[in-house]
Amino acid sequence: MNDTICAISTPPGIGGIAVCRVSGPRAVEIADRIWRGKKLADCASHTAHFGEIIDTEGNPLDQAVATVYLAPRSFTGDDTVEFATHGSRYVQSEILQSLIKAGARLADAGEFTRRAFTAGRIDLTEAEGVADIIASESRAAHRLAFSQLKGSLSGQLASLREQLVELVSLMELELDFSEEDVEFADRTHLISIAEAIKAEVNRLQKSFSTGNAIKNGIPVAIVGDTNAGKSSLLNRLLGDERAIVSDIHGTTRDTIEETANYGDFQFRFIDTAGLRDTPDKIEALGIQRSISALSKARIILIVCDITHAPNRRLIDLAAEHAAADASVIIVANKTDLSPIQPFAAQLQQIAPALPVVAVSAATGNGIDALTNQLVDIMRAETDTHADTIMITNLRHAQALAQAALSLDRTLDGLRSDLPGDLISQDIRETLHHLAAITGSIPSTEILATIFSRFCIGK
Amino acid sequence: MNDTICAISTPPGIGGIAVCRVSGPRAVEIADRIWRGKKLADCASHTAHFGEIIDTEGNPLDQAVATVYLAPRSFTGDDTVEFATHGSRYVQSEILQSLIKAGARLADAGEFTRRAFTAGRIDLTEAEGVADIIASESRAAHRLAFSQLKGSLSGQLASLREQLVELVSLMELELDFSEEDVEFADRTHLISIAEAIKAEVNRLQKSFSTGNAIKNGIPVAIVGDTNAGKSSLLNRLLGDERAIVSDIHGTTRDTIEETANYGDFQFRFIDTAGLRDTPDKIEALGIQRSISALSKARIILIVCDITHAPNRRLIDLAAEHAAADASVIIVANKTDLSPIQPFAAQLQQIAPALPVVAVSAATGNGIDALTNQLVDIMRAETDTHADTIMITNLRHAQALAQAALSLDRTLDGLRSDLPGDLISQDIRETLHHLAAITGSIPSTEILATIFSRFCIGK
Repeated sequence: MNDTICAISTPPGIGGIAVCRVSGPRAVEIADRIWRGKKLADCASHTAHFGEIIDTEGNPLDQAVATVYLAPRSFTGDDTVEFATHGSRYVQSEILQSLIKAGARLADAGEFTRRAFTAGRIDLTEAEGVADIIASESRAAHRLAFSQLKGSLSGQLASLREQLVELVSLMELELDFSEEDVEFADRTHLISIAEAIKAEVNRLQKSFSTGNAIKNGIPVAIVGDTNAGKSSLLNRLLGDERAIVSDIHGTTRDTIEETANYGDFQFRFIDTAGLRDTPDKIEALGIQRSISALSKARIILIVCDITHAPNRRLIDLAAEHAAADASVIIVANKTDLSPIQPFAAQLQQIAPALPVVAVSAATGNGIDALTNQLVDIMRAETDTHADTIMITNLRHAQALAQAALSLDRTLDGLRSDLPGDLISQDIRETLHHLAAITGSIPSTEILATIFSRFCIGK
Repeated sequence: MNDTICAISTPPGIGGIAVCRVSGPRAVEIADRIWRGKKLADCASHTAHFGEIIDTEGNPLDQAVATVYLAPRSFTGDDTVEFATHGSRYVQSEILQSLIKAGARLADAGEFTRRAFTAGRIDLTEAEGVADIIASESRAAHRLAFSQLKGSLSGQLASLREQLVELVSLMELELDFSEEDVEFADRTHLISIAEAIKAEVNRLQKSFSTGNAIKNGIPVAIVGDTNAGKSSLLNRLLGDERAIVSDIHGTTRDTIEETANYGDFQFRFIDTAGLRDTPDKIEALGIQRSISALSKARIILIVCDITHAPNRRLIDLAAEHAAADASVIIVANKTDLSPIQPFAAQLQQIAPALPVVAVSAATGNGIDALTNQLVDIMRAETDTHADTIMITNLRHAQALAQAALSLDRTLDGLRSDLPGDLISQDIRETLHHLAAITGSIPSTEILATIFSRFCIGK
């Protein structure tokens, strides 16, 4: 980790400007070897300088601005030089080759951020926040990532760990005096501390479902009878023509997934094959996928053709396969062809509790009401987490699940008056799992997995 | 042109870093309105500052580095602030929205460079050099663009214009004293000056063919009998499987164009339909395109299957349709199947002058020799232009053609002893055409065309 690394940090491709980053103990010296202009070694930290980059053969390669960041006041904590060049593919490739020839090494994915972590400038959740903020595609996803980047999850975990350390020290105090058979620590008090910790761990763990949906796009399954207008509805929701719409029953054979942003959220709309009995093998496979999409969705849109009676079997099927926290909406389609009353009356008999939105996918009527409802559902869900931290990362959810298990054992132990040293063991295990989240106890394998998901140059 | 503009200057997409540029008289003030950190208005030019960007609702949007460039020491000549943010799509879109809300306007394509031109910091050829350097994909293309960016063409044109001004003042001197019937200026001398100018204009004009090929990729047509192995050869040249290879005669129906870099050059390989008589309409169309590709190529590879006799008709066809400056190479393919001697002997009879490279597209044997030959051809061509300026831009070529016409009239006039005031008129016209190249006499229409070809953010 003591060498000097380089990479293009801007998105791949052609643009006005590309930024090439060099970081490490020899960054300034190496940068100076491909630079014609004011000697970078003589430049103050956080200053920008116009000059020329020289290619591997000493020929001028490009005009550029070099910005110098001296340790420890840089992202990585090491000396760093950023070259802003013209964003041509050739210049980008050539500047890297020149830097490598001058003694730098091409950075691995996420290696700059990894160095910031190793230098203790950020912890793992903050590093993961960096990756998440780069990938974020909606206001809500961005807000979660930015909050994590700024250390909100780290702070929350630090507070939990403080409480656990208090618990363990109370246990050990009890232990020290156990010979004297004096119960220094009131176990009822200890139980209430452990329960409070457990409640917070549970809350964090439960927030993953919503947090993850916000981060990766909220899955909305669109199911319905064949020809009810699912694909037309999807096109309306996406604002353009992405699904093949046809009057032939069973046109949509595969699930189609497309994202669109409404309000602060990104929704992943999953168009599914029509749910009808079919002799066609390929279509039958599609129907299986529809059921799978149903079970993974947070919102299920059951699209009904109001010129037909509501399909009870379909509504039951959706109810049967829906996840526990999923919201189901009946989308009463084709209001351009027929009044909704007869259909609504029949639906009232079958499923009085389900919300109904009347739309015409053909004309676009009612689509705004539908998307508003989608946003309202997610806003209500996130409001339950307002001012608290949501987790968005499977790794964190898994560590919290482990922590919850050892906390359960701790509570069992406290309640059944187990000896303090056994209970302390469980508390220490909980501490270990929480520490793994922020990387206080990093494992090389976990680090490699986390940073390999980054883009090169970050 | 007096407002403040903003744009993302890095390539579109997701990356570690994105750079958002704000430039104009209010750049610092507007940037400060979306900035939480050291007040940018208090920062010295060419200094970088860590802080936070605020979104349209005043919420923190991202951590960022702001670099301040104060007029006139910036690319545009105006005050400029560059924000380096995390390269998420959401952040990029949101920072632009915040800046627009704060009073900036989204920049048009090339508007930053256009402002640099308007401020007199660069001329048009240098501005075009910026666009070309961004688009350059090979060392040779980059070198031409960089030389233009650094003003070599401007310098050359300035020298031509100086000579023309000298010529015109000598003419006018003659004119002033014409009453006295004294020939102050020796017309022979004037003719030799005009001829030197004309020679240089011709040279520049002629360099366009090579310069343009280098800039846009050197067109290499691959022609040959069906099943001679054209597509396999293309795959070898490109290093992967891009063309559909099949044993069925006439698989390649359209021309396929792919680029690959060898040496300092980018080559555009154009695979063509096999040249055989065919009843298939679509294929016949393909053959027409092959002939068209032939006539536009700078290098023609005639691929022959050495297990068959060389196709005299094909070689004649290539010779007939080839451009005057094209190089033709016989690629003797399938050396893995048969010795080359019989084929070579027959070829010697038909086309003794054509260079032959023996390859096996199947095994890859001889491909290096072939690509070396391609590079040698281009190197020899560029060597004839060594240390002189090449033009790469159609606009320049057209203006030079106009200049050449008025220079011809000037020479005719001088030679046929026309009155000086008529000749002066032609010289002024030449000056006008040369001035148009650097934009000394800019036309709004030309400016709009030039800068609209830029990417946004440059």
